[in-house]
Amino acid sequence: MPIQTCTVAIVGATGAVGREALSILHNRGVARDRIIPLASERSAGSHIPYGAAHLTVAPLDGRSAARAFQRADIALFCADADTSRRFVPVAVEHGALVVDNSSAFRMDPTVPLIIPEVNGSLLDAGAEVVANPNCSTILLLVAIEPLRRSFGVRSLVVSTYQAVSGAGLAAIDELRSQSRGVLAGSAAQPSVFREPCAFNVFSHDSAIDPVTGLNVEEKKLIDETRKIWNDPRASVTPTCVRVPVERAHSESVLIELREPAREDEVRLALASAPGVTIIDERAANAFPTPLKASGLDDVLVGRIRPDPGAGFDGRGRCTRWCLWLSGDQIRKGAALNAIQIAESLIAPQPVPSRHAQNREPSPSSRLLARASAT
Amino acid sequence: MPIQTCTVAIVGATGAVGREALSILHNRGVARDRIIPLASERSAGSHIPYGAAHLTVAPLDGRSAARAFQRADIALFCADADTSRRFVPVAVEHGALVVDNSSAFRMDPTVPLIIPEVNGSLLDAGAEVVANPNCSTILLLVAIEPLRRSFGVRSLVVSTYQAVSGAGLAAIDELRSQSRGVLAGSAAQPSVFREPCAFNVFSHDSAIDPVTGLNVEEKKLIDETRKIWNDPRASVTPTCVRVPVERAHSESVLIELREPAREDEVRLALASAPGVTIIDERAANAFPTPLKASGLDDVLVGRIRPDPGAGFDGRGRCTRWCLWLSGDQIRKGAALNAIQIAESLIAPQPVPSRHAQNREPSPSSRLLARASAT
Repeated sequence: MPIQTCTVAIVGATGAVGREALSILHNRGVARDRIIPLASERSAGSHIPYGAAHLTVAPLDGRSAARAFQRADIALFCADADTSRRFVPVAVEHGALVVDNSSAFRMDPTVPLIIPEVNGSLLDAGAEVVANPNCSTILLLVAIEPLRRSFGVRSLVVSTYQAVSGAGLAAIDELRSQSRGVLAGSAAQPSVFREPCAFNVFSHDSAIDPVTGLNVEEKKLIDETRKIWNDPRASVTPTCVRVPVERAHSESVLIELREPAREDEVRLALASAPGVTIIDERAANAFPTPLKASGLDDVLVGRIRPDPGAGFDGRGRCTRWCLWLSGDQIRKGAALNAIQIAESLIAPQPVPSRHAQNREPSPSSRLLARASAT
Repeated sequence: MPIQTCTVAIVGATGAVGREALSILHNRGVARDRIIPLASERSAGSHIPYGAAHLTVAPLDGRSAARAFQRADIALFCADADTSRRFVPVAVEHGALVVDNSSAFRMDPTVPLIIPEVNGSLLDAGAEVVANPNCSTILLLVAIEPLRRSFGVRSLVVSTYQAVSGAGLAAIDELRSQSRGVLAGSAAQPSVFREPCAFNVFSHDSAIDPVTGLNVEEKKLIDETRKIWNDPRASVTPTCVRVPVERAHSESVLIELREPAREDEVRLALASAPGVTIIDERAANAFPTPLKASGLDDVLVGRIRPDPGAGFDGRGRCTRWCLWLSGDQIRKGAALNAIQIAESLIAPQPVPSRHAQNREPSPSSRLLARASAT
């Protein structure tokens, strides 16, 4: 069942991720009258672009939610965790298949946390709600998945260079207006962030755990990687940092493999991976940047090199590799990944395994039943 | 002998580091007529500020160099490596004590490479030329020196967030003009850098070794650390990146200690270290930033926490620690460190060790002899 035949509700349609989801759905050819754009009452009534046309945003409240989700085959939640906690159950109750972009259900053991290129095979298990991982996690795990499959991963050390738009459209406005002010000679007046964001970098703005010293973004990277890899002991050492970039995150990665690999083997694995494009021109000093990654579906990977602190075995193989990636965190890091999940869910399912035979009908089979009844 | 009684030649006086050196010397109370500002013929004749006054820059060429260096007690080289290779021998020949900020002599085994807080004790060995390390190296090694002394260092993984001014004053102009252009809706036109620097991050602009994949900045971090620590096997894994910041570099560091430490021991060591200020307020999410570090002498250190991927021993100790630092790379990363080296050289020397007794007179004793003769 192609997504063009589905009706799709977008919760948080006026936000950065919601707008990107609309743009992708329009490019996929979903007709305008199959889109139900929803937002808080504050944004309701506003007009948002859908291709050359515009859509009028409907309010998402206790009265209207049931009717909206009853019409929808798919509900993409692109708002905050509180909105998801309140309205995802309503969407499920009224038969919509939910892909939730917020952190609300990511660590719920009954909810699959999915990156199609990494653990998309879990989608045939029949969930009603699927969680979309955090942007930094998606970009990192898509990039290194080919290495994990070929050689296994023993540990990851990651430092991020995260665009301000991860904090929403208001953060882009703050970066622009602060930059204008600083260039005109005035001091930055932080509002969205605690620190000035123009011509500055700062530790990620999420709350810090007073005991571990990790911020929430770093905790997500660790916990989500462990869940997605189904490896509760996966070793991830993250440092999450904001940089004055509007869009697309970058990450400096040191990966320790379980099995040693030659450089040509590492490059071959990365080159053949879905969702990954290599930009690694040493002579031209041309590597991934957030500007190059903005608007692209793929994660850009470059600076592929052995850790100079590590040794090689007699066959020219090494277990420790450095790489650098940039990826559009609003697109593959959020909206695109969510739509890819939805597309996988509504695609023809493989024959159920023995484990699945005694289960309730899967959301996709329910969805197909509803779709064929209309 | 205080620096106020010395005559100081500044080679590259019009550049970012040269101007900072002048500012520090003025703050130290060095009289205007004890400063000899030198620059390329292109910049000669220009006026540069010295406190409220101005100095006229003299040309550094084959004819004038001998006369300038004969007058100087100290020559601070703040220009490029080619200038140092050509004129440092002239300065030495004419009796000036050289502190060279360029990379020209850093790896020369006869030239000490000095960070006063780290290996300043080597300065009594009597060198005529002392090399100032690269900015990223200075900031990193000052910050972790207290941990190295207390617990030893097994390995370092470092990702940098480097200000554009490391590439000179023209790079600041490029960042500002590009930012103005992008805010006005035009595309960035790179000139100093190959990549757009406004609202972008990119792998450091230095050349990449086609075999190792390391750029020159990363190679410096490795080689200089090994020389400064006198440990040719020191394990350093660097990734060097430019960010759209005018001034002050930041670094995300994972340090593996030889001996395990408790968190209070790590904090105590850092808190008592010269040249280090801790900013680490978890509840307020307040940590070092390049804006906070700009203009300061100290390296700011924060986000001090154990590697979440590492384990603790039965006594609550861990060998792997993360931290985040910001430091003014033009000040402590260049001009200030060079002046501190000069001040150490001209300070009263300790009684020569037995090893030193048969040596030639040290530069400082020569300097003192000359100074008392005038």
